[in-house]
Amino acid sequence: MIMRNIKIILACFLCGNTILATAQQAIQHDAEHYVLLSQHEDKWTAEDQEIDDKLKKIQDENDGKKPNIIYILIDDVGFGEFGNPLLNDVRGYKTPAINKFATESMSFSRMYSEPSCTPTRAAFLTGRLPVRSHMLEPKIVPPEGTGLSKDEVTIAEVLSQAGYNTVHVGKWHQGDIEQSYPHNQGFDETSFTMHNQATFSFMTKESEADRWPYNISHTIDQHPYILDANFRPKDWVLALDAKKGEQAKEWGIKPGEDLTYDYYYKMNEHQYEIAMAHLKRLAKEDEPFFLNYWPQYPIDFSRADNLQITDNGGSWVARMQELDGWIGELLDEVENLGIAENTVIVIMGDNGPMVQALGSSGYTDMIYRGYKGETTEGGIRVSAFIRWPKSIEAGSLVGDMIHVSDLYTSFARIAGATDFIPKDRIVDGVDQTALFMNGDGHGRRDYLHMYNGPNLAATIKQQFKVHWPAPGTAAFKLPIYNLYRDPREEKPLNVEGMWTVGYFEEMIDRHMAFKKKFPNREETEGKPYEGISNLRPETVKFVDSYLERKKLLEE
Amino acid sequence: MIMRNIKIILACFLCGNTILATAQQAIQHDAEHYVLLSQHEDKWTAEDQEIDDKLKKIQDENDGKKPNIIYILIDDVGFGEFGNPLLNDVRGYKTPAINKFATESMSFSRMYSEPSCTPTRAAFLTGRLPVRSHMLEPKIVPPEGTGLSKDEVTIAEVLSQAGYNTVHVGKWHQGDIEQSYPHNQGFDETSFTMHNQATFSFMTKESEADRWPYNISHTIDQHPYILDANFRPKDWVLALDAKKGEQAKEWGIKPGEDLTYDYYYKMNEHQYEIAMAHLKRLAKEDEPFFLNYWPQYPIDFSRADNLQITDNGGSWVARMQELDGWIGELLDEVENLGIAENTVIVIMGDNGPMVQALGSSGYTDMIYRGYKGETTEGGIRVSAFIRWPKSIEAGSLVGDMIHVSDLYTSFARIAGATDFIPKDRIVDGVDQTALFMNGDGHGRRDYLHMYNGPNLAATIKQQFKVHWPAPGTAAFKLPIYNLYRDPREEKPLNVEGMWTVGYFEEMIDRHMAFKKKFPNREETEGKPYEGISNLRPETVKFVDSYLERKKLLEE
Repeated sequence: MIMRNIKIILACFLCGNTILATAQQAIQHDAEHYVLLSQHEDKWTAEDQEIDDKLKKIQDENDGKKPNIIYILIDDVGFGEFGNPLLNDVRGYKTPAINKFATESMSFSRMYSEPSCTPTRAAFLTGRLPVRSHMLEPKIVPPEGTGLSKDEVTIAEVLSQAGYNTVHVGKWHQGDIEQSYPHNQGFDETSFTMHNQATFSFMTKESEADRWPYNISHTIDQHPYILDANFRPKDWVLALDAKKGEQAKEWGIKPGEDLTYDYYYKMNEHQYEIAMAHLKRLAKEDEPFFLNYWPQYPIDFSRADNLQITDNGGSWVARMQELDGWIGELLDEVENLGIAENTVIVIMGDNGPMVQALGSSGYTDMIYRGYKGETTEGGIRVSAFIRWPKSIEAGSLVGDMIHVSDLYTSFARIAGATDFIPKDRIVDGVDQTALFMNGDGHGRRDYLHMYNGPNLAATIKQQFKVHWPAPGTAAFKLPIYNLYRDPREEKPLNVEGMWTVGYFEEMIDRHMAFKKKFPNREETEGKPYEGISNLRPETVKFVDSYLERKKLLEE
Repeated sequence: MIMRNIKIILACFLCGNTILATAQQAIQHDAEHYVLLSQHEDKWTAEDQEIDDKLKKIQDENDGKKPNIIYILIDDVGFGEFGNPLLNDVRGYKTPAINKFATESMSFSRMYSEPSCTPTRAAFLTGRLPVRSHMLEPKIVPPEGTGLSKDEVTIAEVLSQAGYNTVHVGKWHQGDIEQSYPHNQGFDETSFTMHNQATFSFMTKESEADRWPYNISHTIDQHPYILDANFRPKDWVLALDAKKGEQAKEWGIKPGEDLTYDYYYKMNEHQYEIAMAHLKRLAKEDEPFFLNYWPQYPIDFSRADNLQITDNGGSWVARMQELDGWIGELLDEVENLGIAENTVIVIMGDNGPMVQALGSSGYTDMIYRGYKGETTEGGIRVSAFIRWPKSIEAGSLVGDMIHVSDLYTSFARIAGATDFIPKDRIVDGVDQTALFMNGDGHGRRDYLHMYNGPNLAATIKQQFKVHWPAPGTAAFKLPIYNLYRDPREEKPLNVEGMWTVGYFEEMIDRHMAFKKKFPNREETEGKPYEGISNLRPETVKFVDSYLERKKLLEE
């Protein structure tokens, strides 16, 4: 019966009709969603009706105002590193503000991100696996000359259409071409960084004194063997302020000045203050708001003098504790502004810890094995909490699977903006509002395809996970892991896992069949740093040397 | 100044006077205690006075009755596996009763056990490092012909002298010679097992059908190459009931019967029921009570039909969930009996998970690396909770170091029985009552010497830990770990850890100097299974064959 339904759905799909096309224009999901839908359609339809009633009631109780949404995304901090006092003790530091927030929130034990910053953020922004928008891990070092396509429909665009004021503050990391800037992707106002902040820390003059980099001294180009003066990047743009419809403006640096550690600290403080100022402003508007706060901290490669504020002593751990204080102040302000009850707040990590920073950062992988950039659970399982007083049960814990892209669809639902989700492409994010509002066991996902860059690296179904081996590997040799019994994915099941192989291969077939109809986007390219009103002369030179090298590609 | 104090103490000590001998008869601790005492004596003395006042006040409020003590020790379940809902989710099962208990209790994030069952239990019972009583990991398989010496003074003896009724129910594992039985070591009543329960599970006929053991079939001695009929042990004694001053009686088996899985299940149920019955009886007595409940579960090598009660599906995980239910019923009964407020309850693990049972049990090491029998944190760091309503802060968490031997000294203090702690030997357990009653940061231990069997394997000081290498290793090559920054002890500090080396070597020198004055006890030997009234004929034969082989040692 189930198989027949799936076949009907797949047949429908492959003959060119989107599912439910006869009923109304529906979101186009990936194949596995329809496998589940065929088994749960009646239950989910009834549940959705009930959720709609609840959402309407909540809106009525708030004088017709839709709920505000605040999304705080923390960079490169592994599963369990905030929100759980016992695990704080394991690591030797405290995150009291987020721990308190966790007691007021629903906690997720199986929130999946993507394996690194750019793809996780893209998955949230677009509701799609990042491979579909070609938002793979970008070049680490600027200039990039690529970014998020204007043809992607971000959650900010979706929520804007539903009447939300939208602000992005902090790390963006969605490319350095004009169309990809946040104020060109649906945000009304923004203070953002285009590139990763780790490389930045390595390339300042002070970092040489801190012994981070060797042989990148700013004077080393006087050495006799150094012929290419541009191998060592410098003079790039890190932080920008901007408004929709206007040019961006580089923040906090004048021509001829160097980027420094001090600049990095001040930039973090600036963005925190900007986030706080926007929060206060937005709370007073008639419209509901959507505020992204994606801090640069805890990443910090400096030898800052605050390292001893924790027992751990690591630089990122100290910054995480500092950031926890800032988040606490933002949460207090939500309270003070009287908007706590009508504000949905999500706090979560964006991927596992950064292996490259092990000794200095104070972090390692803790429960799950693996780091940022890897698709073992240590790279992709993150701490996550959602608070919505009166509507989401405080102190609850859910073990259902959820993926960062699900927030796209769920935030849209909560904001009454589902109609603005594009219907002409696959949206991987499934609506998890029922999970949020009805609790453990009400999730709508028990599968996940996990790419690492362009390659499908792993597929998860319930507690079983396959690490896809090289093509041509015999099916009986597929490495299958049971995540409950082997959270560190160190002991592949042998014969005990063989029963899963057929279904896992089916899943790939379905996923690829859907992709054939809705192919991945090609990489979006352009000239870096356009649309910046105060580009420094040295930055212009930096970009020009890049463009000159790039010409060789065309010859 | 500090060093001078230490030198005075050590000088005092080495010239033959016990510390504080001029003041009053004091507990003789190991050297490191005096290093700390010289730095904190004034503060601790004042704090102790305050604690004494509190304890007196509590006793007055309970009509002069001292607090009851219940000690539940769970076998071979690693750190974080009970008491924390998030970590339950990681593993795929629930321990709701202990989780609830944790919210009513103080949780310890740095409770250290010893690396396996016998030494941990001996450390608790004697308040001493198990190497001092020679309670090292015993022969796994009966008969053992060795056990806890009558000259050790157990916590049951200490509390008995202070007027407590004392009961031990469950795993004992302190030897199979008469003097070591619990009713000969201070317990009024007992229902106990002498040996480990894991080996038992392997040696039943059914376990052959379950494919656990190969080549130990009960008929294999008919094979032509099998000349020694006694290589495969059988017919041993597992469970006994006894009372102080009486002979023990083997429980639940008649001559000619085989030990079976069913016997094991029934024995677990029997002991649980016995614990419950004693609890009800003890609560009604005029005297306060001390009840040990040391269940055999979760260890279970059978293919029991309850495996699917958890998402995990492991046999020990299922039993742990079942045990959690039993513990919940005991806790409910404490409530029903109206004794909750005047009862101190500790629930904790006895060491890390058992690597030998990986696939079947459902357990692996989770946060800390390593297993039972190892001295990485995974082997010796355990989940632990103490509840004493009104006197210990509910829901608190302490990061101070504490060792299982500290419970000996602390329980004695709480019971007003400190005077009965022997003063003629080193007691490693330090009094942690101030930690219990005043909370985080009030602990009295920041060091631990960890033996593995007879060998000093590791020394911990604050967050630093040395894995002692082979004698003769150069000091600058000592592997030092920072437990906060590297909880899995995978990345030894190199030059950053060198500053610890001198002090760690001092610690060993002090420890060994004290040992020279108070040497370890020699192994206590004897004839197995004496003092059992209903020894089966086949057991007599089993012991006789052992004794006959043993004679060869003397020839």
